[in-house]
Amino acid sequence: MYDYLVVGAGAVGMATAYHIKRLSPSSRVLVVDQHPGVGMGDTAKSAAAFRTIFTSWINRTLAKTSVGFYREVQNSGYDLGMRHVGYLFLVPRENEATMRAVAHELIKAGTPVELYDKMDIPIRTRVSEDEEAREMGLPDVSVALLVKEAGIIDPERLVRYYYEKYVEAGGEVMFGVKVESVKFSPKRPIGIPGEPFPWQDARVAGVETSAGPLEAKNVIFATGAWTEMLMDAAGFGLPIKPRKRQVFVVKASGELGDLLRAGLADREYAPMIILPRGIYVRPEPVEESFWIGVSDRRRYGFEENPEPEEELWRFGIYPVLTKYVPLFEGKTPHNAWAGHYDENVVDYQPIVDRLAEGLYVAAGTSGSGIMKADAVGRIAASLALGLEKAELHGGMVVDSAVLKKTRCFEEERLVI
Amino acid sequence: MYDYLVVGAGAVGMATAYHIKRLSPSSRVLVVDQHPGVGMGDTAKSAAAFRTIFTSWINRTLAKTSVGFYREVQNSGYDLGMRHVGYLFLVPRENEATMRAVAHELIKAGTPVELYDKMDIPIRTRVSEDEEAREMGLPDVSVALLVKEAGIIDPERLVRYYYEKYVEAGGEVMFGVKVESVKFSPKRPIGIPGEPFPWQDARVAGVETSAGPLEAKNVIFATGAWTEMLMDAAGFGLPIKPRKRQVFVVKASGELGDLLRAGLADREYAPMIILPRGIYVRPEPVEESFWIGVSDRRRYGFEENPEPEEELWRFGIYPVLTKYVPLFEGKTPHNAWAGHYDENVVDYQPIVDRLAEGLYVAAGTSGSGIMKADAVGRIAASLALGLEKAELHGGMVVDSAVLKKTRCFEEERLVI
Repeated sequence: MYDYLVVGAGAVGMATAYHIKRLSPSSRVLVVDQHPGVGMGDTAKSAAAFRTIFTSWINRTLAKTSVGFYREVQNSGYDLGMRHVGYLFLVPRENEATMRAVAHELIKAGTPVELYDKMDIPIRTRVSEDEEAREMGLPDVSVALLVKEAGIIDPERLVRYYYEKYVEAGGEVMFGVKVESVKFSPKRPIGIPGEPFPWQDARVAGVETSAGPLEAKNVIFATGAWTEMLMDAAGFGLPIKPRKRQVFVVKASGELGDLLRAGLADREYAPMIILPRGIYVRPEPVEESFWIGVSDRRRYGFEENPEPEEELWRFGIYPVLTKYVPLFEGKTPHNAWAGHYDENVVDYQPIVDRLAEGLYVAAGTSGSGIMKADAVGRIAASLALGLEKAELHGGMVVDSAVLKKTRCFEEERLVI
Repeated sequence: MYDYLVVGAGAVGMATAYHIKRLSPSSRVLVVDQHPGVGMGDTAKSAAAFRTIFTSWINRTLAKTSVGFYREVQNSGYDLGMRHVGYLFLVPRENEATMRAVAHELIKAGTPVELYDKMDIPIRTRVSEDEEAREMGLPDVSVALLVKEAGIIDPERLVRYYYEKYVEAGGEVMFGVKVESVKFSPKRPIGIPGEPFPWQDARVAGVETSAGPLEAKNVIFATGAWTEMLMDAAGFGLPIKPRKRQVFVVKASGELGDLLRAGLADREYAPMIILPRGIYVRPEPVEESFWIGVSDRRRYGFEENPEPEEELWRFGIYPVLTKYVPLFEGKTPHNAWAGHYDENVVDYQPIVDRLAEGLYVAAGTSGSGIMKADAVGRIAASLALGLEKAELHGGMVVDSAVLKKTRCFEEERLVI
């Protein structure tokens, strides 16, 4: 009988398990994952960038404290592959006024950002002189915002860090075991098969897995894109849906190599570049390449073995990418992969909630799970431990229920 | 080319279409439904009760104005089968304090409710003297609340009323046609197959159906339990999920007949009775019977042809029902049916929102669609017509975006 069973050994699950063990060393904690090791689900398929600068309080709080923790780990000598290359938002005219307002707010608050007027934008785009681009309806870039407290990280090292610390502290793991459902038992059994019935008070008893049942007093689902199907089947409705995501890798050779090494604001490498129409270009210095993706309005749904689609590159990304950054002309990806976002379809923020006695969920990170994993893990651990408050890295304290599904957050204005 | 195409001829869809036509008589409006007539989906499977008394503002506003409209229709001579039999909440001790607080608030506000102390509760229950009930963990009833502005209605007549008025006003309908998907077209076509691509500005062009494409400038999905699968496929995430619901019908013969005719507060028939553990007993005077259901924590999911499950009656309802109302002992349902709720899994309120240019949704009524259909229809019509405000029955004005998916409502405290 485990005290806490965490389903999912991705960034959120491992951070949660680590923080449970840290806060309650004598508890018996188990992490179960269907993969043969940690971080092999969608954590490994992340675009793995981070920033701490957002307009909404909740984004800022989760990302800033998490990234602060990662930085401390990195500075302590455990290399997480963090590089503070920055984010460069290339902003079309239609959004210029909004972006200027956001930038001025940030600058006033002392945030390290830089606003470039059209003529000073450090990445040359040719949309304004290109007739085809105009026919395609692609907007000219009229201003750019460089966000400096931002960069890239290696999610596999991050999750491995949590895993090592967790195991050191006596945490247990079970890999290659798939959790199939959550089990409840009646608080007052009456001895009739089929219990618990709808009218019986019940609490979590454990989970059914591909390797048989596991008993636990508390189960925390940190199951990302798998969350919807597991919780639907258990009768707990969450506004979290899986959505396919794809990343295409282009070698940074020739002039693209120069672009890769053209860091801004004294950084060694190019920033994460956010183009209009949801396309992003992420530097990958170790592999001398760029990772490219797009936030497309794709159907929701889960694919058992998601594969990257050449068509998305060809029709969804390439035509726009090459208009804004002509250096990519003629390039084709030499690698690509696909995974899932676990998207909160209401406010795109994670949900950490208690769904029933002994049943918790920590999911819905909506594409920013890596940069928020530490805070989400601390909140999930505190909630599962029955603490009213969660202490985030750096000492900031939030309500453990801050991410419950019925919360209300302001809308983020600085989005990809 | 239609100006407005409403998908779904249930209560919400027909109310929406009727109000569009009422507010914009010259618009060409079409209602499409897969069934051979109006109200043949989940509208016909509703428990079809109404109340106007809630603790939350939004529940009160939607139900009170809608029921006010139905009452006016009924009083004008168009029989909607409304009977103001009331709702009787039988409250277990664990909820007594909350219910007393709610009741005192309501009484202070001049709401027609009546609170019965244990000895005066007009329905005799025997839980307190029953050892088996105690072993089952069933709580004794310690107080009861009678809500008078409440009762039952015939949803098929209601939807027929809207249908007749809509057709009279020149509205068009297409039955037996299943809408399969929503179609978009690029605002600036470039003439390449596969348009619109993710980076193109697009707007609704119409729908694909089992009978071929239909063109429309605006499409409103009033698709209840079908909403999730249709909108998931279109890439629009909503916190709305289908959940099976079942109603069991028991003949009101012998002493049950006396119970049926034992109206409270001068009403002719028994009230809708809400037992502990989510079981409700609805009088059906026309058929001399009771409709019985339970809000069970059932898995989410859609069934193509949902059937009632004898097991739910036998293990989920009967053991509890007979403990609270022993008159049901030995009774078996002579009829039953199953349908779906379209449940908003966050706040159990309807969502009326604009998802893209020309694309609207009006769904998620979560089991109170009949009693809120008029207000939801007025809000959906106003939003689709581009009006900032919606005028509800009785002259109350709300923002047309009041039910957008990112709203924040207080939690309802008076629930089944």
